[in-house]
Amino acid sequence: MREDATAAAVPGPDAPARRPGRRRDGAKDDVILQAARELLTERGYDGMTMDAVAERAGAGKATVYRRWPSKVQLTVDSLLCSKQVTIDELPDTGSLREDLLTIFTMAGRMKNDDLMSGLLTAVRDEPEVRSVFHEQFVAGRVRLVREVLERARLRGETAPGADLDMVAAVAPAMVHYRKVVAHRPMDAEFAERLVDTVILPLATGTPADAAPDPA
Amino acid sequence: MREDATAAAVPGPDAPARRPGRRRDGAKDDVILQAARELLTERGYDGMTMDAVAERAGAGKATVYRRWPSKVQLTVDSLLCSKQVTIDELPDTGSLREDLLTIFTMAGRMKNDDLMSGLLTAVRDEPEVRSVFHEQFVAGRVRLVREVLERARLRGETAPGADLDMVAAVAPAMVHYRKVVAHRPMDAEFAERLVDTVILPLATGTPADAAPDPA
Repeated sequence: MREDATAAAVPGPDAPARRPGRRRDGAKDDVILQAARELLTERGYDGMTMDAVAERAGAGKATVYRRWPSKVQLTVDSLLCSKQVTIDELPDTGSLREDLLTIFTMAGRMKNDDLMSGLLTAVRDEPEVRSVFHEQFVAGRVRLVREVLERARLRGETAPGADLDMVAAVAPAMVHYRKVVAHRPMDAEFAERLVDTVILPLATGTPADAAPDPA
Repeated sequence: MREDATAAAVPGPDAPARRPGRRRDGAKDDVILQAARELLTERGYDGMTMDAVAERAGAGKATVYRRWPSKVQLTVDSLLCSKQVTIDELPDTGSLREDLLTIFTMAGRMKNDDLMSGLLTAVRDEPEVRSVFHEQFVAGRVRLVREVLERARLRGETAPGADLDMVAAVAPAMVHYRKVVAHRPMDAEFAERLVDTVILPLATGTPADAAPDPA
């Protein structure tokens, strides 16, 4: 599994045929990027090191450094290929409530929130990480909910005065807060309560019928 | 400022008059706890070390270890005395909208969200940290909004069907997501939009009048 185990830690000049290039060995690149994501999830940005990534990937440090000269660049690339759900993968149930419950069920299973929490100090301190993080974990999620709301709007399900952009931002905020900050499960019960007492009333302009038992 | 600068790194037995006790020297304790909070904010839990806390506080390592044998305990105590706003400190404006804007204005100025983001890996991995974190940064904030909603309920401002416990959870989730995850300012414009298009419609059962320009 290991390669380059005897290579120097600092990358040296390669022969012309082996010029540095991130896509040169796609399979090995993927293993390294996957190792980086795992370590970011387990230890956070501050605890992740290039050495640990090389070891986890079974790669030489020189191999890692040749392709990603810095931790910031490795982090950015590892996030770029992080799995994102898009509207095309989401079945159109024809009902806003069902579409939202589908999203929240998927969100409850995703492991990305642990990855997110380990990145928040880098989001603050590293502009390059902040940018890719925002696209992958904020804008992408808001957009998915916004597109589901748009389908509902075209069906006439939404209220004319509803601020659908703001409603779209509430959903991922509540998922993140629930899972990572409050550290409680994003289960079916919470998903239904979130949909029925927050998202649907805001989107459709119809107040929730009755308050469930206080938590 | 420094004391115990020559003390051994590992705490030794003290004379009877100097038995270990966290409240023995309140002023020095406060300096150490403040240093811990600063370092947790700047470097996160994974990057904070007992050595760095001792140095920042101008205290000997032995002094720090005598009072807090582990990083977990020091972290827990430093969070326990983190400043929390309670309902008693919040002026009763007589209007839910004004009460909420007051809370969001304060939330926009608080530095605690940076502290929070550095703690999220510890929240996942250390049950003791999770517990104090939850009380200080989750339950306390939700409770503050819930109490403001309760004042509004007693004035007859809220809708009978509104799930006020859920509404109370939306506010801190949106503040955290805005400041720490989306990394954008919790300014007056966002606070008004949040109040007028999300919190007030949910609490009062009155749909928002018109959608602002999409962001």
